[in-house]
Amino acid sequence: MALRTAATRLLSNTQKCAAITASRAQGTAAPAQKGSISQKATKVAFNWRDALDLEGQLTEEEVMIRDSFRNYCQEKLMPRILMANRHEHFHREIVSEMGELGVLGPTIKGYGCAGTSYVAYGLIAREVERVDSGYRSVMSVQSSLVMHPINAYGTEAQKEKYLPRLARGEILGCFGLTEPNHGSDPSSMETRAKYNPSSGTFTLNGAKTWITNSPVADIAVVWARCEDGRVRGFILERGMKGFATPKIEGKFSLRASATGMILMDEVEVPQENLLPNVSGLAGPFGCLNNARYGIAWGALGAAEFCFHAARQYTLDRIQFGVPLARNQLMQKKMADMLTEITVGLQSCLALGRLIDEKKAAPEMISMLKRNSCGKALDIARQARDMLGGNGIADEYHIIRHVMNLEAVNTYEGTHDIHALILGRAITGLQSFTVGK
Amino acid sequence: MALRTAATRLLSNTQKCAAITASRAQGTAAPAQKGSISQKATKVAFNWRDALDLEGQLTEEEVMIRDSFRNYCQEKLMPRILMANRHEHFHREIVSEMGELGVLGPTIKGYGCAGTSYVAYGLIAREVERVDSGYRSVMSVQSSLVMHPINAYGTEAQKEKYLPRLARGEILGCFGLTEPNHGSDPSSMETRAKYNPSSGTFTLNGAKTWITNSPVADIAVVWARCEDGRVRGFILERGMKGFATPKIEGKFSLRASATGMILMDEVEVPQENLLPNVSGLAGPFGCLNNARYGIAWGALGAAEFCFHAARQYTLDRIQFGVPLARNQLMQKKMADMLTEITVGLQSCLALGRLIDEKKAAPEMISMLKRNSCGKALDIARQARDMLGGNGIADEYHIIRHVMNLEAVNTYEGTHDIHALILGRAITGLQSFTVGK
Amino acid sequence: MALRTAATRLLSNTQKCAAITASRAQGTAAPAQKGSISQKATKVAFNWRDALDLEGQLTEEEVMIRDSFRNYCQEKLMPRILMANRHEHFHREIVSEMGELGVLGPTIKGYGCAGTSYVAYGLIAREVERVDSGYRSVMSVQSSLVMHPINAYGTEAQKEKYLPRLARGEILGCFGLTEPNHGSDPSSMETRAKYNPSSGTFTLNGAKTWITNSPVADIAVVWARCEDGRVRGFILERGMKGFATPKIEGKFSLRASATGMILMDEVEVPQENLLPNVSGLAGPFGCLNNARYGIAWGALGAAEFCFHAARQYTLDRIQFGVPLARNQLMQKKMADMLTEITVGLQSCLALGRLIDEKKAAPEMISMLKRNSCGKALDIARQARDMLGGNGIADEYHIIRHVMNLEAVNTYEGTHDIHALILGRAITGLQSFTVGK
Amino acid sequence: MALRTAATRLLSNTQKCAAITASRAQGTAAPAQKGSISQKATKVAFNWRDALDLEGQLTEEEVMIRDSFRNYCQEKLMPRILMANRHEHFHREIVSEMGELGVLGPTIKGYGCAGTSYVAYGLIAREVERVDSGYRSVMSVQSSLVMHPINAYGTEAQKEKYLPRLARGEILGCFGLTEPNHGSDPSSMETRAKYNPSSGTFTLNGAKTWITNSPVADIAVVWARCEDGRVRGFILERGMKGFATPKIEGKFSLRASATGMILMDEVEVPQENLLPNVSGLAGPFGCLNNARYGIAWGALGAAEFCFHAARQYTLDRIQFGVPLARNQLMQKKMADMLTEITVGLQSCLALGRLIDEKKAAPEMISMLKRNSCGKALDIARQARDMLGGNGIADEYHIIRHVMNLEAVNTYEGTHDIHALILGRAITGLQSFTVGK
Repeated sequence: MALRTAATRLLSNTQKCAAITASRAQGTAAPAQKGSISQKATKVAFNWRDALDLEGQLTEEEVMIRDSFRNYCQEKLMPRILMANRHEHFHREIVSEMGELGVLGPTIKGYGCAGTSYVAYGLIAREVERVDSGYRSVMSVQSSLVMHPINAYGTEAQKEKYLPRLARGEILGCFGLTEPNHGSDPSSMETRAKYNPSSGTFTLNGAKTWITNSPVADIAVVWARCEDGRVRGFILERGMKGFATPKIEGKFSLRASATGMILMDEVEVPQENLLPNVSGLAGPFGCLNNARYGIAWGALGAAEFCFHAARQYTLDRIQFGVPLARNQLMQKKMADMLTEITVGLQSCLALGRLIDEKKAAPEMISMLKRNSCGKALDIARQARDMLGGNGIADEYHIIRHVMNLEAVNTYEGTHDIHALILGRAITGLQSFTVGK
Repeated sequence: MALRTAATRLLSNTQKCAAITASRAQGTAAPAQKGSISQKATKVAFNWRDALDLEGQLTEEEVMIRDSFRNYCQEKLMPRILMANRHEHFHREIVSEMGELGVLGPTIKGYGCAGTSYVAYGLIAREVERVDSGYRSVMSVQSSLVMHPINAYGTEAQKEKYLPRLARGEILGCFGLTEPNHGSDPSSMETRAKYNPSSGTFTLNGAKTWITNSPVADIAVVWARCEDGRVRGFILERGMKGFATPKIEGKFSLRASATGMILMDEVEVPQENLLPNVSGLAGPFGCLNNARYGIAWGALGAAEFCFHAARQYTLDRIQFGVPLARNQLMQKKMADMLTEITVGLQSCLALGRLIDEKKAAPEMISMLKRNSCGKALDIARQARDMLGGNGIADEYHIIRHVMNLEAVNTYEGTHDIHALILGRAITGLQSFTVGK
Repeated sequence: MALRTAATRLLSNTQKCAAITASRAQGTAAPAQKGSISQKATKVAFNWRDALDLEGQLTEEEVMIRDSFRNYCQEKLMPRILMANRHEHFHREIVSEMGELGVLGPTIKGYGCAGTSYVAYGLIAREVERVDSGYRSVMSVQSSLVMHPINAYGTEAQKEKYLPRLARGEILGCFGLTEPNHGSDPSSMETRAKYNPSSGTFTLNGAKTWITNSPVADIAVVWARCEDGRVRGFILERGMKGFATPKIEGKFSLRASATGMILMDEVEVPQENLLPNVSGLAGPFGCLNNARYGIAWGALGAAEFCFHAARQYTLDRIQFGVPLARNQLMQKKMADMLTEITVGLQSCLALGRLIDEKKAAPEMISMLKRNSCGKALDIARQARDMLGGNGIADEYHIIRHVMNLEAVNTYEGTHDIHALILGRAITGLQSFTVGK
Repeated sequence: MALRTAATRLLSNTQKCAAITASRAQGTAAPAQKGSISQKATKVAFNWRDALDLEGQLTEEEVMIRDSFRNYCQEKLMPRILMANRHEHFHREIVSEMGELGVLGPTIKGYGCAGTSYVAYGLIAREVERVDSGYRSVMSVQSSLVMHPINAYGTEAQKEKYLPRLARGEILGCFGLTEPNHGSDPSSMETRAKYNPSSGTFTLNGAKTWITNSPVADIAVVWARCEDGRVRGFILERGMKGFATPKIEGKFSLRASATGMILMDEVEVPQENLLPNVSGLAGPFGCLNNARYGIAWGALGAAEFCFHAARQYTLDRIQFGVPLARNQLMQKKMADMLTEITVGLQSCLALGRLIDEKKAAPEMISMLKRNSCGKALDIARQARDMLGGNGIADEYHIIRHVMNLEAVNTYEGTHDIHALILGRAITGLQSFTVGK
């Protein structure tokens, strides 16, 4: 009769338990008193904007960061996005505004950075992507792919030189890993770095493509294969001879952010611009994991926008005498949206806590990057469908999210690649290479 | 009796536990130190059996309860289920064994019940349904649909009379709500209760169908419409005149549990068997919410079994010279399974905590009952497919879960009905009745 | 002019054709000799471009029409579409070219029209939409929504006045049915036509939106509610006072065709511009059915382009040492694409034959419009995904089809509306109005 | 102005054309007179039981065969199936009844067989599987896997000895290809045949599993690897020493047919029982293609039953005051079912005609076997769901089809294997073997 005995003894421990539980209850954990579902049914109102009370699981600081940044996004970014996207215009000043708000490289401690929790970082990504994935991409690149590697793999001098200016948004960075012929396979990297002992410099040759921010970036963290066969990271600066960043035209996704190539034709890079504390693919992969974590949160922010917008549209629009929202087919779509958003966010939160506790594995991030992006894309498509003909007009915003999420679901590991990463983790067998 | 020993050990460890829990609580709520993802990437191993460290979010007591009950399920239930399902045989003694373990009505305090958290209740449901949804149904009915209403709506005398015997599994109960013509619409209830002032009894007439446990139950909590038009609950006992419980034959789901009707032909029920503290549909709905919460956890337990079994099968089986698990098509299925199970369980945990804190709304439960069941059914079907021809043999167990989950996805609110419940909560507009 | 030459050749081959067709007809109807599958397995090569030999079921004339129009589309339209779509530019001259080729109003007999079979019309739609749904929309509107109603409901004078010029592409038409507030519910039409006995004219007031071609059209077939409550069609001409056609900006679908509104502010329309031979919604619905039939074929043409392009891309692109097309996950997507395209086209052919035989019901068209569009959209999305990052660039064309098919799946009856039309046909119960 | 010219000339050819068309119109092809859709809209009634007029494309003989066999199936098989499935009982007499009706080996000419078209064979398979996939499996095995190889690869003496008795259903056959460890990979066959020059016999050793009919079969066509490394077929007879056919217990699919193993322990088979006219896997693959063609039709017959049954159930059952069929969620499911059944059947018909014309490739059969089975399984699952709780009772039949179709979707090439077969045909690259 184990449980029964345990219960009896537990009760004799109530005082101790109560103290523990009280402190935990503020966080996420178990309460002192059990409630019955039915009695509460009439008391607790269901909040479709936060269906499992995510907010109740955040710290006060996290809620505060989220709310103030949400205000900025809704008041300052939302009014700019329509035309920015329509005309493929990148507003550079947004980076400075974000710097002002302290949301660039927010988890870094020191060097003018905010030092927030990873959960706070996730909430920031969610709020900005609620407006536009292009804006979130700009921010992710700056925070996870430029500031993070400098902080994690750079020298003290590099940190002091670059991080404060990056944090303020004074300078903008980009991240050069992907090459034209090797989208999902960075191990085939062709960009080369050759050391010149006489000048103490490295000469870089190669091309990178689909580089967010490259046409407007001041610096670039570029990964190249050195003569010892190992991949290393370098900080390149605009103005270096042989360094060019042509813009990619005709992009129908993430149009509010600039995307381009990085062309390196005998670019000479001083030795002090090498990131010394990492070699091999662990370097760029660490950055990608960091960025993917932000995407996992951000994509759900975009999904939330689409859900809320479709909900409002169908409430407002009358067909056959009733609001569209009164139709079962519409309600089922919304029920699915709500569910996926809710369970996705709960898991992002759990993952953020694990990262903060240094208990996260990269496969966890693959799983949630893949889940959030795939589900967000589905939700955006369903939402667009709910708007009928109006849904193809950019002023309703959803078609923009549909287009954006195509890229988001693809970059930093496609949906299928992450499936195979997970498959390998599950089975111990890799299936990337399918027998040459 | 595994649980008993484990409990003894637990109690001698209380001080240590308190310390652990206290430190863990700090971690969960707001970590002292932030970690970078990349640095941990090489250190934290990914555990495909618990992809987001659910265990780390449980209390010591919850882990202990789960582990000892899992042992029972795997050692005592698993060996019986194959033949029980094949021959539609219900092992009545299982109820007594469960009573012995203290898992019947576990959240109830007093009356010989364990008084666990709702999270612990969820973990129990998950473990038993990992073996069979029929067994979990037997347990859910006893706990949520019989013991819960007696505890929540009954008199002190009723509680004292029934709860201890139900908790021990000495008697078994069933729950009579659904009627032959009104599966999803209990408001059309036809069963009638008529008060006889002379005898101080109620006369019940009507029929209930698809009643888990009814053919073998000792008591039945039956809902009937009284003369004032309101629905009320009654405790009927086997042996009452006019009370019959024919078994439903030809069931291809939940075959290890008994399902039948409840036929009431002028059954005379003493007034003291009325549940006095509730009237209207709030009564049965409160019970259903309680049960649905358990199903949300349980269905994912069944899904986990299918995932794990399919994984092992495809690792063991060689085709075209490699394990089936080496195929991309197989790995993608497993990646999807892992993801849905993981995000589903995280949300069940969050919901359990909210119930324990009396912060849960019924729509939350609808959402997760629907999500878990729908996803579990998909997973079971995919897993069956992964077994190829062998997948139709009951000895591999998965086809049994496929069949079971058809019922689980349907009962206590179908997938579609819960979509409309959510749709109403989202939009404020009901779409159940579609205009006659 | 490819078609002209081809036609000449065809005619000189009539005798031979007749022989071929006669023998083929015997085969199709009831084969003289039965074959065994296995014996042929080694002999008949599988053609993934035509997996069930659709071509073998076409007449010589139909094949000829298809081939020469395909040449035009690939040689003349394909080179223009990239920039047309990128810059939202409508090439008006395309209409004249199509007129030259005889593909406008092709099923109409006389009045300078070709008088082809409906199957030939379908093949034409498929070829043009293989390039772009916007171009097909322009053509569909001209053929099915402008020429068809004039031919079916107009006076002899109207036919003689408009049809030859429309057939030549000398003038372009549009179709005004949909109103801003009544996308899927034309029965709530607000546009009014009031007869003025003194002048013998009708005064039209109202607004139509999402009108393909409207900003550039010379005439408009507009539907309005008359004083007797019945809906009737009118031919409006550009230049009429009070008739305006503002363009809709910010459209991210069908950008190569112009879309706008039709605003009618006391537009005076001569009585001879009334289409006299129809009243009620049967008029516009007849047009829509005609157009939907073309869409059913056309959408699959777009799907075929996406399938073929993704196939070629994955064959050409090497990742992890093998072509992407060597991956199971890629092959499965292509197998699904091939299957849906093939079974969809077979059914379009069967429907075309039924229309030609006057045996088609509108629900058949609903079914295939819905099936083709839904499946084409899925295929385009999968194809885009197969292109990874490159898939968001318009130069690969697929993202354009993804965006286009959002509109195609929505207009002339959304996917859901056609589901309810079919549902009504299946059950005899309508579920459009959900209880006001 | 090609089309216009073509049209003019075409008209001058009307007499000739008319003759051709008239003859074709009786079959499937183009009509003499074109009709406009709108005019017919009011005239042609939509028939949800045959949504694209499949019947109009059949020959009189085919309709007649279908109708009489349908009568048999509905009147004689349907009443037996409930208990046969519940109790796993195979009614051997059904084979004799089918033989009486002439539906065994129906496409074979001579030897007491009917010599029908392949379309007729498909219609027969559809009718029997409308009742039960197990019954169709019995028939498929007899016709395609036993009679077909004897007819295609056997000696005249073998044909005369076996075919008439098999055609009458006097003896029943089975087909031994699949081995315990090589479900989808027959090239790894382990069963061996060793020639004994002295006795002029072959000695067979090995095991086959999941063999439909084996426990009750009189003869077995068994494939074994000979000493020259090539696979050949043998006719084994019950009673041969060392030949055993144990039944597989605990099968939850196709319970109305018997399934077992074939165990061969030094079975001595006379040389005259070797099928001499084929060697290599082309032999069994030819048989499988033949059977798969029947499955493609049959699975849709099962789907049609489920669709019709769910339709009737939802029309009859009142919830919330209206028939369940009045709900949008129900109607959408039915619209999807109708569509997939209709387009699937049209393609089966086209394939049947191609086989009859000796123009079919095996990949066509793979495509439709896969499509029909996958779609049928989806439809059956949706139909079961529409029945709610009642849907798990066998008396409603749908759950039986759900279980059956799991096997049907798997056997003779799983859904995934056929995807890879198609993928190979599309790309020229095989992805079965994934690199050891």
